[in-house]
Amino acid sequence: MTNPFEPRQVTSRRGGPAKQPLSQDAIVAVALELLARDGLEGMSLRKVAAKLATGAASLYVYVDSLEALQALVCDRGLAAVKITRASKLDWRARLVALLRSYLVVLMQTPGLAQLAMRTIARGPNALRIIEAMLGLLQEGGVDLATAAWATDLLALHVTAIAAEQSERRGRPDPLGPVAQVINTVSSDDYPMIFAARAELLGGGPLRLAWVLDALIEGILRTPRARQASQSHTGKRKA
Amino acid sequence: MTNPFEPRQVTSRRGGPAKQPLSQDAIVAVALELLARDGLEGMSLRKVAAKLATGAASLYVYVDSLEALQALVCDRGLAAVKITRASKLDWRARLVALLRSYLVVLMQTPGLAQLAMRTIARGPNALRIIEAMLGLLQEGGVDLATAAWATDLLALHVTAIAAEQSERRGRPDPLGPVAQVINTVSSDDYPMIFAARAELLGGGPLRLAWVLDALIEGILRTPRARQASQSHTGKRKA
Repeated sequence: MTNPFEPRQVTSRRGGPAKQPLSQDAIVAVALELLARDGLEGMSLRKVAAKLATGAASLYVYVDSLEALQALVCDRGLAAVKITRASKLDWRARLVALLRSYLVVLMQTPGLAQLAMRTIARGPNALRIIEAMLGLLQEGGVDLATAAWATDLLALHVTAIAAEQSERRGRPDPLGPVAQVINTVSSDDYPMIFAARAELLGGGPLRLAWVLDALIEGILRTPRARQASQSHTGKRKA
Repeated sequence: MTNPFEPRQVTSRRGGPAKQPLSQDAIVAVALELLARDGLEGMSLRKVAAKLATGAASLYVYVDSLEALQALVCDRGLAAVKITRASKLDWRARLVALLRSYLVVLMQTPGLAQLAMRTIARGPNALRIIEAMLGLLQEGGVDLATAAWATDLLALHVTAIAAEQSERRGRPDPLGPVAQVINTVSSDDYPMIFAARAELLGGGPLRLAWVLDALIEGILRTPRARQASQSHTGKRKA
């Protein structure tokens, strides 16, 4: 499998004033438009080719496969993620800002979160985000081995929040059936759920703040050096 | 929208020795088989009806919509999740065992993790799992408001791990292209990634243990009562 992010030496013999000349860049731009408009299912090589007024076969000169196109589109989408370098903010605030920006970018383009769930980060924008997270965690005193796993934990969790929200956005009254079930749960059958029912359904923006806080706190408190030397059979008390 | 988990008063006038009598139970069982065999795309009302030698219209007597069927199938799949009540283990070990069982169940049935990502938990098995998590967290001294958000955090994260793994399982050499990219990253462009490259790609089973440990530790260290009284503008030092 070749790396879709490697530059290719392709000279298009097409072009002219009426048609946009074919290039990997043009293909990815059109695919991202289709993704934003129609979601993941709307982004096929056939549809991209149709929009560029060419055949799917012509695209293979620039993109090996649908998977390669998805990787390129995902990374192009991530170009919008902001990395704050403002030194007035400490590392933790900058890490939270980076994660929030990543979440907003994923939520703004329908299908991008689903794409990020299935695409392994390997483009320049994903690398830039990973590099920044590693740097911020190191600034926070997290050792490199822990920071490596922590970047994956943070990115996966934020991607999952976005994917879950995107799946539900299209539905009428997305919380309806759950709210209905949770609110009618019997205190005999599910006493804990009954007691926590308001908290289970509520939260709003405070909830995201709490989640990011808990994830970062957990990373800070779980250096891998300590993990290796401790038993995980449940004898440790919190 | 009606609750698909409410029992229905339906008397089937069909049946007989050659055909399985139609029931919600039979429909869900067949749908789960199709999901396990063909993944999420293979589970349509049409295909379920065909397997039951009936028309899709007949299914609507028992199931309102594909979404309702997905909710029923997802919950049926979760019946296999084990909740350890062994009192020899402390709450934390039992919580980890529950989360691991949930992960194993999601990974064993292709499509179940994707279904869990898009389906809001509201069936009896999901409720049983949430009830158990709330109880274990309370045993660990976590207040109810925090435990409510924590169950969601834990369930979402484990679901995301399973969904990500399931997406990649079907591919040849799933880590190939990433390993290739990460291992060829230049130390000038991405010094942190270059330094962490072995850790970014490695881990195995230890990695899951670390993730669960970090998530639980973060929950323990981030009671919501404290969150409300603290500033989140980045002035707090870890």
